[in-house]
Amino acid sequence: MNKQDKKEIDNKGITVKKQDDMPEWYSEVVQKAELADYSTIQGFMVIRPNAYSIWEKIQEYFNKRLDKMQVKNSYFPLLIPESFFKREAEHAKGFAPELAYIQKKEDGERFAIRPTSETVMYDSYSKWIRSWRDLPLRLNQWCNVLRWEVKQTKPFLRTREFLWQEGHNVFETEKEAIKDMMMVIDEYKKLCEEQLAIPALVGRKSDAEKFPGAVTTMTIEALMPDGKALQCGTTHNLGQGFAKVFDIKYLDKNEKQAYPFQTSWGFSTRLIGAVIMVHGDDKGLVLPPKIAKNKAVIVPILIGSQKDKDNILKKSREVEKKLAKFGAFVDDREEYNPGWKFNEWELKGIPLRVEIGPKDLEKKQVTLVRRDSGEKDFVKEKDLVTSVTKTLDDIQKSLFDKAKKFLDSQMDSASSLSELKEKIKQGKMVRAYFTGSEEHEGKIRDSVGVNSRYLEQVKEKGKCIVSGEMTNTIGYFAKSY
Amino acid sequence: MNKQDKKEIDNKGITVKKQDDMPEWYSEVVQKAELADYSTIQGFMVIRPNAYSIWEKIQEYFNKRLDKMQVKNSYFPLLIPESFFKREAEHAKGFAPELAYIQKKEDGERFAIRPTSETVMYDSYSKWIRSWRDLPLRLNQWCNVLRWEVKQTKPFLRTREFLWQEGHNVFETEKEAIKDMMMVIDEYKKLCEEQLAIPALVGRKSDAEKFPGAVTTMTIEALMPDGKALQCGTTHNLGQGFAKVFDIKYLDKNEKQAYPFQTSWGFSTRLIGAVIMVHGDDKGLVLPPKIAKNKAVIVPILIGSQKDKDNILKKSREVEKKLAKFGAFVDDREEYNPGWKFNEWELKGIPLRVEIGPKDLEKKQVTLVRRDSGEKDFVKEKDLVTSVTKTLDDIQKSLFDKAKKFLDSQMDSASSLSELKEKIKQGKMVRAYFTGSEEHEGKIRDSVGVNSRYLEQVKEKGKCIVSGEMTNTIGYFAKSY
Repeated sequence: MNKQDKKEIDNKGITVKKQDDMPEWYSEVVQKAELADYSTIQGFMVIRPNAYSIWEKIQEYFNKRLDKMQVKNSYFPLLIPESFFKREAEHAKGFAPELAYIQKKEDGERFAIRPTSETVMYDSYSKWIRSWRDLPLRLNQWCNVLRWEVKQTKPFLRTREFLWQEGHNVFETEKEAIKDMMMVIDEYKKLCEEQLAIPALVGRKSDAEKFPGAVTTMTIEALMPDGKALQCGTTHNLGQGFAKVFDIKYLDKNEKQAYPFQTSWGFSTRLIGAVIMVHGDDKGLVLPPKIAKNKAVIVPILIGSQKDKDNILKKSREVEKKLAKFGAFVDDREEYNPGWKFNEWELKGIPLRVEIGPKDLEKKQVTLVRRDSGEKDFVKEKDLVTSVTKTLDDIQKSLFDKAKKFLDSQMDSASSLSELKEKIKQGKMVRAYFTGSEEHEGKIRDSVGVNSRYLEQVKEKGKCIVSGEMTNTIGYFAKSY
Repeated sequence: MNKQDKKEIDNKGITVKKQDDMPEWYSEVVQKAELADYSTIQGFMVIRPNAYSIWEKIQEYFNKRLDKMQVKNSYFPLLIPESFFKREAEHAKGFAPELAYIQKKEDGERFAIRPTSETVMYDSYSKWIRSWRDLPLRLNQWCNVLRWEVKQTKPFLRTREFLWQEGHNVFETEKEAIKDMMMVIDEYKKLCEEQLAIPALVGRKSDAEKFPGAVTTMTIEALMPDGKALQCGTTHNLGQGFAKVFDIKYLDKNEKQAYPFQTSWGFSTRLIGAVIMVHGDDKGLVLPPKIAKNKAVIVPILIGSQKDKDNILKKSREVEKKLAKFGAFVDDREEYNPGWKFNEWELKGIPLRVEIGPKDLEKKQVTLVRRDSGEKDFVKEKDLVTSVTKTLDDIQKSLFDKAKKFLDSQMDSASSLSELKEKIKQGKMVRAYFTGSEEHEGKIRDSVGVNSRYLEQVKEKGKCIVSGEMTNTIGYFAKSY
């Protein structure tokens, strides 16, 4: 290793331990694993290929689910007339502070960059929906949205611009709308758990925390290693509120004009932030195999005579072909040595490393090294595909299990505000009886400094932690991103 | 057919012949085939699922090509600081009139919504590129862009916001940059010809028509049935101009600081407009099979006893399964009769209709009807997949051949300005010797009212149509979108 190479490794490695300073660790992983970079304009980010490919994997998976749900993709305008926002009072209040308007006006009206697309989509829906034959209408779009945050921004977790999907469905009955809200939140949970290997908590948002304009909001929340909760996706039953203000009416089967019921739902590139935080370690990113474009990297150990080297390279190419369906690739760069490459791909989170050296060649084997555990395994060439499949499955499962174990260990309960405060301070996710009312939530916010993450209805009643009233509702509390 | 249904068909059908009034025909097809809808804000459009799925097919195809070219997808910010635009003089001049700035400022600086991303991307590139080891750098993004057009807008062809891909590559040598520009324009030609079934003309843009900031621009142009040319994609050799103003420097293999060479290239949702215009007919959209999500629709002809109907439906489901890889689906809606369905799917351009009625059932066959020619074919069930594959291939080829024949018939030449003017008036694409200089192009614009679409270098010299100078350059002229 020459001096130049040595220096680059030092520059590239993560210098802070995740446990010691998670914000700084996060920031280093994002930068050094080339996931994102800051933009000149504050609060904006560049999503680099290593992170964008995660988003593409999520899209690939979720597009199939959308297809199953008969939701079709479409694209609506980036700009929304100011007057549209004013129609639904709660929606207007919720989004007004974060809107960015453009300078150009027409007929005296200002246009905002979309922070979410309910209003602009439902304006179109009002033209398209005429009869019960036009229902259900199910549309989704993958797009960028802008919310002019004043809070501190952080790549993926909170940025002024982010990418997301937003689904907007219209039904004849409230029952169908509620079913849709519940079905999609379950899809989100599956996405988190089965693809991202992140255990997800599901519940209803309190009145204070629900989406501006929604009747009910369902949420999936994940717990980060620092004890903070991260909202990973929400689905909303919008009732008939938007239909009424956007004049979406249809002729029902009895030839009568009726307002339909609506849902909307979305998740964003924030999920990438969750993946980084939940699975990453002191060496950098750790990617669950299912969302890794390149699930394996092949590193030839080029030692010995030129002929030996040629044979090792040849074998590496053979292995690359056999592992093509895993997106495996050979790192054959001559300007870097194997140690440098190991560090590089560990930093970037590739789930599996395949080493091929003179000994491997001799024994007709390859060496597999797991990114999550560092475990080494020698695998006979003939068993290669089976072993790699099994190991990747196992990595996926191990990552989930580890995160689940942590989540379980963090769950606690409280029966008084002071106990809640104490446990929140310890970084726990705390359950407590709580009516869910805006008034009581305000009191918790004032004394403990957190909001509820979600609510759960239970059979057995208990005393509300704020008012002492008996209630069936349990609130879950944690610090949050 | 009840009265209500009858009325809907009348409403839905195209009322203008393509040949009689192409602008009105286009507008009806866009609306009635549910490809796009106008937005409240002038010059913006909603891309509806029938058109968005074409875009997704194009993305699916082109992402594979990008992968082959080792270009990686990424995402850069929507907003660009005003100062970035001012750095490259030509670029600034070219885009200034179309920029939309947001009202929010920071440190007194305004931010524009991206009309193209050279500047914002190259600001990042200047941070990332340090050494020859970092080159080539090849990134692409799929995104929305905004150009505040003052010309009349038209769905897909000219809108203030549109979707596109933009690739931005950086190389050590000019040779590589030129090679990239030529390779990608060839990819664009293949995309047009092999996927969209649109014959494409390839050439170099004149100085007056090239991209603001480029050394050379290559273009693919397609000829629309009204004789107007449509620019379908461009690739640019940017030379070192942007590198110099954005301070992109790297340490070369001789340990010396050097400026790299750059390219950029893009195509947009405008391609969807080309597909509509080139292949559509008096019944509506005609989709080339390769870009149709649903290449076949199965329409059960439900006549006879309930048992007969059940059998026909059952058979339809079987056929749907067999044709799953073609995205075939059964239209089993009870509220519409077969005639209505035929019209609906013809309007929407589905390449192939599979009819299944009592006679088909009896003869163990299905009836195939081609969208492009209306030809009927009876196919034995056992030959189903083979026949459908063959027919779809044939439709793809026929559409291309027809468009190619038209293109060839429209090509003409001129040796004087008056001849050029006359032939342009006839709706021809006209070739003529022409130096390509801005001065001469200005004269043609003034006297004939068109610009050159592209230039070609030829061996044999001829007299420039403007100046009479001998030149190796031939210009191609046509009215354009």
